[in-house]
Amino acid sequence: MPAKLTSNSYGKSAVRLTKLKRLPDRHELVELEVAVELTGDFADSYLTGDNRLIVATDTMKNTVYALAAQHPIDAIEEFGQSLAAHFLANNSQIATATIEVAQTTWRRFAEAGKEHPHAFLGAGDQRRTARIVHTRGGTQTFAGVADLLLLKTTESAFKGFLRDAYTTLPETDDRIFATRLTAEWAYAPGRHDFNAIYDVALAAMLKTFAHHTSLAVQQTLYAMGQSALDAAPAIMSVDLEMPNQHRIPFNLEPLGLPNRNEIFVTTSEPYGLIKAGLTRA
Amino acid sequence: MPAKLTSNSYGKSAVRLTKLKRLPDRHELVELEVAVELTGDFADSYLTGDNRLIVATDTMKNTVYALAAQHPIDAIEEFGQSLAAHFLANNSQIATATIEVAQTTWRRFAEAGKEHPHAFLGAGDQRRTARIVHTRGGTQTFAGVADLLLLKTTESAFKGFLRDAYTTLPETDDRIFATRLTAEWAYAPGRHDFNAIYDVALAAMLKTFAHHTSLAVQQTLYAMGQSALDAAPAIMSVDLEMPNQHRIPFNLEPLGLPNRNEIFVTTSEPYGLIKAGLTRA
Amino acid sequence: MPAKLTSNSYGKSAVRLTKLKRLPDRHELVELEVAVELTGDFADSYLTGDNRLIVATDTMKNTVYALAAQHPIDAIEEFGQSLAAHFLANNSQIATATIEVAQTTWRRFAEAGKEHPHAFLGAGDQRRTARIVHTRGGTQTFAGVADLLLLKTTESAFKGFLRDAYTTLPETDDRIFATRLTAEWAYAPGRHDFNAIYDVALAAMLKTFAHHTSLAVQQTLYAMGQSALDAAPAIMSVDLEMPNQHRIPFNLEPLGLPNRNEIFVTTSEPYGLIKAGLTRA
Amino acid sequence: MPAKLTSNSYGKSAVRLTKLKRLPDRHELVELEVAVELTGDFADSYLTGDNRLIVATDTMKNTVYALAAQHPIDAIEEFGQSLAAHFLANNSQIATATIEVAQTTWRRFAEAGKEHPHAFLGAGDQRRTARIVHTRGGTQTFAGVADLLLLKTTESAFKGFLRDAYTTLPETDDRIFATRLTAEWAYAPGRHDFNAIYDVALAAMLKTFAHHTSLAVQQTLYAMGQSALDAAPAIMSVDLEMPNQHRIPFNLEPLGLPNRNEIFVTTSEPYGLIKAGLTRA
Repeated sequence: MPAKLTSNSYGKSAVRLTKLKRLPDRHELVELEVAVELTGDFADSYLTGDNRLIVATDTMKNTVYALAAQHPIDAIEEFGQSLAAHFLANNSQIATATIEVAQTTWRRFAEAGKEHPHAFLGAGDQRRTARIVHTRGGTQTFAGVADLLLLKTTESAFKGFLRDAYTTLPETDDRIFATRLTAEWAYAPGRHDFNAIYDVALAAMLKTFAHHTSLAVQQTLYAMGQSALDAAPAIMSVDLEMPNQHRIPFNLEPLGLPNRNEIFVTTSEPYGLIKAGLTRA
Repeated sequence: MPAKLTSNSYGKSAVRLTKLKRLPDRHELVELEVAVELTGDFADSYLTGDNRLIVATDTMKNTVYALAAQHPIDAIEEFGQSLAAHFLANNSQIATATIEVAQTTWRRFAEAGKEHPHAFLGAGDQRRTARIVHTRGGTQTFAGVADLLLLKTTESAFKGFLRDAYTTLPETDDRIFATRLTAEWAYAPGRHDFNAIYDVALAAMLKTFAHHTSLAVQQTLYAMGQSALDAAPAIMSVDLEMPNQHRIPFNLEPLGLPNRNEIFVTTSEPYGLIKAGLTRA
Repeated sequence: MPAKLTSNSYGKSAVRLTKLKRLPDRHELVELEVAVELTGDFADSYLTGDNRLIVATDTMKNTVYALAAQHPIDAIEEFGQSLAAHFLANNSQIATATIEVAQTTWRRFAEAGKEHPHAFLGAGDQRRTARIVHTRGGTQTFAGVADLLLLKTTESAFKGFLRDAYTTLPETDDRIFATRLTAEWAYAPGRHDFNAIYDVALAAMLKTFAHHTSLAVQQTLYAMGQSALDAAPAIMSVDLEMPNQHRIPFNLEPLGLPNRNEIFVTTSEPYGLIKAGLTRA
Repeated sequence: MPAKLTSNSYGKSAVRLTKLKRLPDRHELVELEVAVELTGDFADSYLTGDNRLIVATDTMKNTVYALAAQHPIDAIEEFGQSLAAHFLANNSQIATATIEVAQTTWRRFAEAGKEHPHAFLGAGDQRRTARIVHTRGGTQTFAGVADLLLLKTTESAFKGFLRDAYTTLPETDDRIFATRLTAEWAYAPGRHDFNAIYDVALAAMLKTFAHHTSLAVQQTLYAMGQSALDAAPAIMSVDLEMPNQHRIPFNLEPLGLPNRNEIFVTTSEPYGLIKAGLTRA
């Protein structure tokens, strides 16, 4: 008996593009990785291989470059919106277009405070992100940051937690708190100054991370989310993920050395993973 | 105004363990990567840093090793079930425990058809996977395979697709079809012979991949899902993801050479990504 | 004062190609990653930007595909030799061409012992490798294997090692020995049956790994190198690298559980790294 | 016949440590990855499994942490020197100790120009590196930078290169030049202000990259090496590696769009790889 198709989607991922804007006094550089995912009336392709309603993923790729050529890409949210709108406007068989855009972080080379017109340095793994979910009923715009490394060397405790037969972790008043922040917020409907809001929301979260006296990664995560909502009224809600990239005190005692909470093993695995979603009350 | 916590969870990821079973005539090797994720009454930790109901992620890690020592791990699904059950049985504040287990693929070294008692060779990136979602209302068990490389050199076409202003892809009757299969199926409630079903479902999908005359990746994906449902009655539904790892014909004409559809550029990006969920009709 | 150029080279790396051989009864699949590196009379490009003697790296890439179209690639060593020879034969300014070829491991899909004509499965990270160093004075051919995962669960000890103030490692009679073998051997001048020798040398090393009673990774590495030399007279010398991918016994005592040397933490870092070169006495 | 051991070495890699310096007004953070490699009188371990002269790689790891606890690590070069000296001073069987140190790049969090005492942000993949080769005859100290992303959007040409039957690359007056710089310089014997010299040499190379009118990656690489030698008299020589991370103009013509040299495909492979070594004339 033929199986029922309960869900289906397809798209193109890892479309990487560099756009260069040749302004009179300087060049601007935009480097993006884009993913397109469509849902719609595609069952025939799955069931019989009839591809008449299928936009080829190669065409999606071409469309990303074509629209990038015609769009200013001043904000990746707006570029993503235009891509999503293109697919729905031109294809009645499409129900939903989801566009993900991740922007590489470059900083302009500078000497003695003066910015260079066309030379750039890599500035970290973190990427500014946007996600557009465009349906026939409307468009939702999400934005955020992915993989931003944060570390504080004190004002982080973890104690009073539940102890059971398998608990060996000692309580601590003073540990290193290192994480790789991924946060995504949802915009209220309408137009926004996406670039300004990105700066404001990110700055609020970073400031909170730096100044928070942490009793748990959970508590700091919540405080960071709260600060983003407080700082940016256009944001309705925010989701955060913060892996706990443990720095484990190295036991120097067997080596006959005193232990001043100064020497740690940097670990990648295993890692704690703390998540939450916050919305305005 | 304090934000409302709409969702929260936390856990430990990338807990890697090797279990060695010392049988009389041979050793068996089980290598796993486990992730634990809990939801429950954890809001106080987020809101005030009160950790009294928090099972430390370090305790989760210890629990994985402790239960691995006490469980035969004959099937990773059952090991995951026991882990999930442990957390709920011992902690009334926990609402849901999700356990993910991925098993590394080793094959036993053999000479002249005779298997070696304790030497093993790596056998690929693909991992057998299990996922257990245990709530106060019951347990769901999922299992599957991740990152299994498949390639066929013919009997794959892609034509008759929609053409628009940005379409440049030529139609083809004969292309290389390469993918990295990830599939996950849902088990009907109750106990099952998970190892046997894994073998049957995987074999069915591979056989279908090899023998299918493909008009689209979508069609082959559906056929593979169908074959898993047909082969394994204990499976209620299956989700598949198949990236299209393009082999692009290299244009030899500018080099003065004939083009016999034999020389291809192996690419990693961009890639098509095809997905679907199937259930019994 | 202008600096002196003490060495220089340039080339193209990560040229990935798939070659499909359409035989009457089946397809054969060859997937390679190729790197080309040239030395020669290139100083003008470095010193003044005069590129007249520079073979563009894009041309190197084209050459790889062009020669792949014209060469049977029955053995990657011979394909590498033809590439190296091409660059020297056509460019008097080139002193040395070094070609590296790494072949992806695919295995043919089979059912009930019958091989499928055109479907393949990924078969692990390990790659067969070749390296050709072609100078005006002659050609040296190297070949080997990279990143082959090996593991034995017993017959591996490590004891009697030096103990100093910073030594805490206990001696052990019985540990897991896991490694990722990379080996490269040098061929005697002349033509060889590279495919047969690859099989023989690899089989000898694997058999030795499996059967060796190891007192140190060093000792097993040497025995494996020795076995390759013994098995393959055409090989003059062999270099081996074997990281020690530690499986560390998990301390179950604090959890109140007995410790039967069965439960281990699988680690990626730090890792021991053992190397040696062997030649015929 | 037993094979002759032509070379051997062993060591510990990927030893990752975080050192926290608790100064009165602020914390300083040092995050390192260290590798130790020894040569010496180790043949017995290879030949017979006699480990009496073997410093266990676990002891090497402990030594890294122990010395990190006792050393200020104001400069990674000096920390590496102390590690290398430790192994030779305490083990007469050791001929050479090679220490590699790579320092993760963190920048201090700042608000309105004021630096935070204990919060840090990730600042890129690039690592400051040191390499110490300590033999019984003396010590050589190398230092540099690895994986620093650089990009300029103009003042980069590539033309006048050799054209042969397989050349299709068009000449260009204006291309994007993107690379991932790895440079390592050799210090003259003696003590140096390693931190100051690192800053001076790196700044010189970056300034040259930004201001150079490039006729070839080769020419820019040479100019950068020259600038490091000019800026830092303590440096005797410098080796540079610069992959050419191609940005390939996307062909918009088939899409009916004008081509203004603004839209590029960001690629990871294949890549050019340009190298040279420079020394004072």
